[in-house]
Amino acid sequence: MNAPRANLPAAYGELERRFHRWTALKDGRAVLEWDQACMMPDGGADARAEQIAALDVVCHGMLADAVLGDLLQQAGDEAKSLDPWQLANLAEMRRLRVHATALDPALVEALAKASGRAESVWRKARPAGDYALAKPVLESLLGLVREAAAAKADALGVSPYEALIDEFEPGLRVNEIDRLFDGLGAFLPGLREAALAQQAKRPAPVRPKGPFPEAAQQALGRRLMQVLGFDFDHGRFDTSLHPFCGGVADDVRITTRYSEDDFVPALMGTLHETGHALYERGRPALWRYQPVGMARGMAVHESQSLLMEMQVCRGPEFLSFLAPLLSEAFGGDREAYAPDNLARLYARVAPGFIRVDADEVCYPSHVILRYRLEKALIAGDLSLVDLPGAWNDGMKELLGLTPPGDREGCLQDIHWFVGAWGYFPTYTLGAMTAAQLYDAARLTVPGIPSAIGRGDFAPLLAWLGEHVHGQASRWSSTELIMRATGKPLDPAIFKAHLERRYLA
Amino acid sequence: MNAPRANLPAAYGELERRFHRWTALKDGRAVLEWDQACMMPDGGADARAEQIAALDVVCHGMLADAVLGDLLQQAGDEAKSLDPWQLANLAEMRRLRVHATALDPALVEALAKASGRAESVWRKARPAGDYALAKPVLESLLGLVREAAAAKADALGVSPYEALIDEFEPGLRVNEIDRLFDGLGAFLPGLREAALAQQAKRPAPVRPKGPFPEAAQQALGRRLMQVLGFDFDHGRFDTSLHPFCGGVADDVRITTRYSEDDFVPALMGTLHETGHALYERGRPALWRYQPVGMARGMAVHESQSLLMEMQVCRGPEFLSFLAPLLSEAFGGDREAYAPDNLARLYARVAPGFIRVDADEVCYPSHVILRYRLEKALIAGDLSLVDLPGAWNDGMKELLGLTPPGDREGCLQDIHWFVGAWGYFPTYTLGAMTAAQLYDAARLTVPGIPSAIGRGDFAPLLAWLGEHVHGQASRWSSTELIMRATGKPLDPAIFKAHLERRYLA
Repeated sequence: MNAPRANLPAAYGELERRFHRWTALKDGRAVLEWDQACMMPDGGADARAEQIAALDVVCHGMLADAVLGDLLQQAGDEAKSLDPWQLANLAEMRRLRVHATALDPALVEALAKASGRAESVWRKARPAGDYALAKPVLESLLGLVREAAAAKADALGVSPYEALIDEFEPGLRVNEIDRLFDGLGAFLPGLREAALAQQAKRPAPVRPKGPFPEAAQQALGRRLMQVLGFDFDHGRFDTSLHPFCGGVADDVRITTRYSEDDFVPALMGTLHETGHALYERGRPALWRYQPVGMARGMAVHESQSLLMEMQVCRGPEFLSFLAPLLSEAFGGDREAYAPDNLARLYARVAPGFIRVDADEVCYPSHVILRYRLEKALIAGDLSLVDLPGAWNDGMKELLGLTPPGDREGCLQDIHWFVGAWGYFPTYTLGAMTAAQLYDAARLTVPGIPSAIGRGDFAPLLAWLGEHVHGQASRWSSTELIMRATGKPLDPAIFKAHLERRYLA
Repeated sequence: MNAPRANLPAAYGELERRFHRWTALKDGRAVLEWDQACMMPDGGADARAEQIAALDVVCHGMLADAVLGDLLQQAGDEAKSLDPWQLANLAEMRRLRVHATALDPALVEALAKASGRAESVWRKARPAGDYALAKPVLESLLGLVREAAAAKADALGVSPYEALIDEFEPGLRVNEIDRLFDGLGAFLPGLREAALAQQAKRPAPVRPKGPFPEAAQQALGRRLMQVLGFDFDHGRFDTSLHPFCGGVADDVRITTRYSEDDFVPALMGTLHETGHALYERGRPALWRYQPVGMARGMAVHESQSLLMEMQVCRGPEFLSFLAPLLSEAFGGDREAYAPDNLARLYARVAPGFIRVDADEVCYPSHVILRYRLEKALIAGDLSLVDLPGAWNDGMKELLGLTPPGDREGCLQDIHWFVGAWGYFPTYTLGAMTAAQLYDAARLTVPGIPSAIGRGDFAPLLAWLGEHVHGQASRWSSTELIMRATGKPLDPAIFKAHLERRYLA
């Protein structure tokens, strides 16, 4: 799969040497970020900010270096002697260089400052539901984001909103998102009503009774991580305020958080982050320190966490495997831990205002709303003064609900206030990709579900390793999905999954 | 104390900007090293080595940059507009540049490889006591170290051995070490025999009975760290194979290790590392990211740990304070925890072959032996074929013992096998400095010991903050000691301390 590192053409070889160092510095930064979330005392925050800022300046300097530009140009002339992985690597190097150099340094600094201000105002405005307080800082930030989007759009030859998306999910285009989201947006309200009606006709599932001691939850999480294929010789499992997957490929560190009243959030969070971790760890070892060896993008990343959490671990085979482990971990309550009861418990539909609390059926509607609004805001088709109204109209259309205030409405998410515009679509593209990948895996290897029922994830991991993890950034997401499943991303597969689980 | 950062002369200002970034990168490296010792899974070692190597290349490149050389020259012309701290900062920048550029990059690489080989062979040769196995790799390494010493000697204008010392304790000279060590080497055998004779006449102290649960030891350690002045909002306390003080000034992290059979090693290790931590944390905040704000050197650093561990925490006032806490932590055994019994327990003299197990009276003899041998090896006055014999002769002369083999002799320490030549003297210079500083502190602030007896370290810390911690690298060690105590380092003070404790 990989070419040896010796005898590389001169310019390309020098590029690999430089990007190796750049990646190793980024990896060091990732460990420092993990430490910040899991270990660092509060009083270490300023010092850590200095360390991260110094690394960022150095890494940016390496990408912006004029010599790197010359090398990229010279490597173009060496294309005939490069193999397909090396060519893909060169393309990723170019993409990183464009993102690093498209913006004037003064704009980069202004964006960082405006994000800092907007986030800090948002932390006050959200609990108070005070959109008027947040709007001025969001206005300044949005202005700068639109300026950055325009500059990157020029450099990348795409629309401004697409230029923003490109940082999270390279190559993704608006017409593709529209194709996928328009149908889904129309489909979901009907599914939701049908699911609610069916749910109302059945007796409510039995809720297991707590408390669920943190130590027992943690031991169970650790055990299940190993079942899924997590290698503790190359990773850690810790606690943090917000669950995340961090560290580096060969030392990948996931976290969760615990409530002793309910074991489900910590458990599902652990399985979700394990999906991310297996992707990171499965990236090709020979390309660890090159851009082509990095994860493809946030939609594919989210597909790996949702494939584990939503497709596999809420499915009947895994629940049969899980049921006795839950009884063993938390004692008693056999009825509550019966696989069928667990399945109904995990598939409750309950529409609400808040995205992060949403169930699998309602979640995409939250995402579609944000996608439509941010696209219009970046294009200048919507102004911030009209955002609360547009938000509430969209909620009514997509979820049939009207938020009581902006706290439960357009102030709920941090993304826009830290400058992360273009990120939202990846959540639902990830969910759709997860459904399609798991479908294809089962078609090719029919024994996957029954193996999972025995706690054997090896057949699934082998398929994912071959078609997703081991491909890293060799292909665009579109091509990766096409090669893995034989067709482009098809919303019908995700819809069929939802119908099977929520209407059967 | 510090000049404001604004309106700096151009070249000097640019130097501060560059060294700020350099220091922040070094700080990030320090956190990664802490993680490696305390958190990292074994499988993360290769990735961590890549991260550290990338940081080292970048940091070395910043120091070796030709522009930095020009700036240092230009800043010389700005000297008249610099204040004393800035001038000291400039001198430290120059010293760092000399160490970074004196060696040819090929020699740096050869040294790194030879150290790696020598350390790995040493890990086999030591347990086997096989000097013949270790000698060839040590020979290659010593050859390269001598080459490096000669190159640095030229650049610094000192002798080759002094050039090696300069990395650990800047400015320290051989005639100064000889002045201090010759008298001490002659004095110690007599003191040791007298202490042993006196010890033999008294009843043996009562040994507290274990087991001492790790959790209880840890809680006690934490409590005592707070008593000494450690701020847990700016630091951590963890477990590692070898106790150390790491992290950064505002997030300083110490470790210890536990044996449930004996609480003393973990406890003393914790107090020792807390001394290091208080020095790091006490460095002047305004100079955190400049060379002049760094710790002065390893002898001064060791003086801060030994001042806490040896001078203060084995002294009668602290033992009176500690006794009831020990009873409380480990229960029963009132007789064993009586201050007088503890004092006799902590002041047992027991000559042996191994430096790291040595008591306060024997330890300096181990150090003097290594100092004499490494100085002769670097000068070419001793060859490695004669090392075991010379070691054993020195042990006989200094400690009256003949090691049964090289495992207990010249193979016991890692230092030479990782290329750390010139480090050993700092241990005993630190012990002598600790005695002199504590003496001076008590002369100026007579209430210090009685405050310690009440668990109040504030008066001691105020004195250390003013005379040591807050001075960072403002002065040479010699001048720092002179200013803090009114005289040069005087071996008589350390001797008097030993006589008081071991012959009284």
